[in-house]
Amino acid sequence: MEENIHKKGTWLTVRDDVKVLDCTIRDGGLVNNYHFTDEFVRGVYNTCLEVGVDYFEIGKIVSKKVMSPEEYGAWNFCEEQDIRRIVGNNNTNMKIAVMGDIGRTFKEDIRPKEESVIDMIRVACYIHQIPSALEIIEDAHEKGYETCINIMAISKISGTDLDDALNLVCTSNADVIYLVDSFGSFYTEQIRALTEKYLKFAEQSGKKVGIHAHNNQQMAYANTIESMIMGTSYLDATISGLGRGAGNCPLELLLGFLKNPKFKIAPLLKFIEKYIVPLRRELHWGYDIPYMLTGQLNEHPRSAISFIKDEDTDYLKLYNTLTDAIE
Amino acid sequence: MEENIHKKGTWLTVRDDVKVLDCTIRDGGLVNNYHFTDEFVRGVYNTCLEVGVDYFEIGKIVSKKVMSPEEYGAWNFCEEQDIRRIVGNNNTNMKIAVMGDIGRTFKEDIRPKEESVIDMIRVACYIHQIPSALEIIEDAHEKGYETCINIMAISKISGTDLDDALNLVCTSNADVIYLVDSFGSFYTEQIRALTEKYLKFAEQSGKKVGIHAHNNQQMAYANTIESMIMGTSYLDATISGLGRGAGNCPLELLLGFLKNPKFKIAPLLKFIEKYIVPLRRELHWGYDIPYMLTGQLNEHPRSAISFIKDEDTDYLKLYNTLTDAIE
Repeated sequence: MEENIHKKGTWLTVRDDVKVLDCTIRDGGLVNNYHFTDEFVRGVYNTCLEVGVDYFEIGKIVSKKVMSPEEYGAWNFCEEQDIRRIVGNNNTNMKIAVMGDIGRTFKEDIRPKEESVIDMIRVACYIHQIPSALEIIEDAHEKGYETCINIMAISKISGTDLDDALNLVCTSNADVIYLVDSFGSFYTEQIRALTEKYLKFAEQSGKKVGIHAHNNQQMAYANTIESMIMGTSYLDATISGLGRGAGNCPLELLLGFLKNPKFKIAPLLKFIEKYIVPLRRELHWGYDIPYMLTGQLNEHPRSAISFIKDEDTDYLKLYNTLTDAIE
Repeated sequence: MEENIHKKGTWLTVRDDVKVLDCTIRDGGLVNNYHFTDEFVRGVYNTCLEVGVDYFEIGKIVSKKVMSPEEYGAWNFCEEQDIRRIVGNNNTNMKIAVMGDIGRTFKEDIRPKEESVIDMIRVACYIHQIPSALEIIEDAHEKGYETCINIMAISKISGTDLDDALNLVCTSNADVIYLVDSFGSFYTEQIRALTEKYLKFAEQSGKKVGIHAHNNQQMAYANTIESMIMGTSYLDATISGLGRGAGNCPLELLLGFLKNPKFKIAPLLKFIEKYIVPLRRELHWGYDIPYMLTGQLNEHPRSAISFIKDEDTDYLKLYNTLTDAIE
């Protein structure tokens, strides 16, 4: 059996099209309801600047009419004055991104680009929400932003539905289509096949492909670089993998792989010593058996998150619950 | 750029040639000088039996003339009566393996197969030690054992030296040649190229190829399955990745991938709850920033192990030490 991989380079190639997007605050905020101190957020921003990150995603842009500012910290809402408190006018080469959610983010939450320090709007959606996502994306595009669409949970999409989805997305003005491994369930050869599919659609319509991977099976980094080698150019990562459940592709692993001399690892090591080592005593994230099980079984991690929150270690009971047959 | 991968199956294929070798006690013993309780070793043995492991490596077979039984536990020496205390006559389909070290294991330490419950002798060696390794292997082969040669630190071998090594190994009676990623420094495409090379040599001489990966860059599992898909058939893993430094390919991830119905995960989940959860409070192993750095820099993990033992978190200092230039 042969598999022919079309590669855009080798492990030693510098690719100028590669963009690193740090989503430490945005994905990490899912662990603590966005209750980061300004010092921490500023630390991530400054570190990203120093190490050569291309996009810094500072949080979600959710309406306060839908989620409560008493329950969620500032980075769930990303109001302009809050972002500027951290980044000022962001007179740097690093771009600022925020993420919108379907049913929680509305056009009126996004101001014209001239009035905002934000550069990129990303919208995460399930497949049936693509029309709603594209409405926000078209509006953001008209307002002057770069845009991404991140279709979630594609490991649950059957038949040719993904092709229909990508066809639809390609009629839009989204700049980047993200390949998202929501459940951390994909193996390398599935990532290769999906990357090839996404690239085919994206290249026909002048778009780029990005990847956002989860670490349920310790594959987030491996899948990210494998997808990149085939041509994916927007790479999501978080510092020490901080993110919901098993977390994300660790930025320090990714920067260690990338050969472009603009990327530097030293400031990141300092940040990890100063902020991540103490944070690990407060927050729980990263690879663990319950997340492995939901990843292997291609399930949403919510049952694993609740299992770990309860300090349960009866892994077999969780496995049995997850594998209950339904005919 | 094209890379043509010759695959022996897809992620859904059952391959009867695939053998799982558990080295929890042997590689884990490097963390605690082989001071495991009999209860723990018996637990690993029974779990391996129940989950369908093919080979159970119970330790090293080192001479007591070289290393002291006061400093090292029984599983550094694997005397026959100690092994039998755990496995009896091992009247099972699972085979028992031990590992020999160059300069520490001698022919007289290995009895004729008829007198031993051991089935397989594995020898780990650096490239310049291959002649010494082959001497032990030929002796063990004549005595009736299956044999493996595990050439270490191949990421430091230059030019065509590895071809010379494999040519020499192919003249021997070793049954399996192991592709060993000692420093956890290889990326997937390097693993693919090496697997292809090892398979070419092995197939010409009627041998099998195995893989032993370390997790410094969270690639142990990803590299193991990628190598397997191309034809590697002996797969090393340890329970929860227990092993020196960043540890090994976790058995629970590997069994979650393998589709052969003989493999079962439930007993492993029970073992992890009962023995690994408490062991993590005593022993330190698994992915961490210092191991990542030695992996990225293709270095032996000893400096990272000592750094972590000292509870140091000045990662930048370690990085600077590791990257000192030598012209």
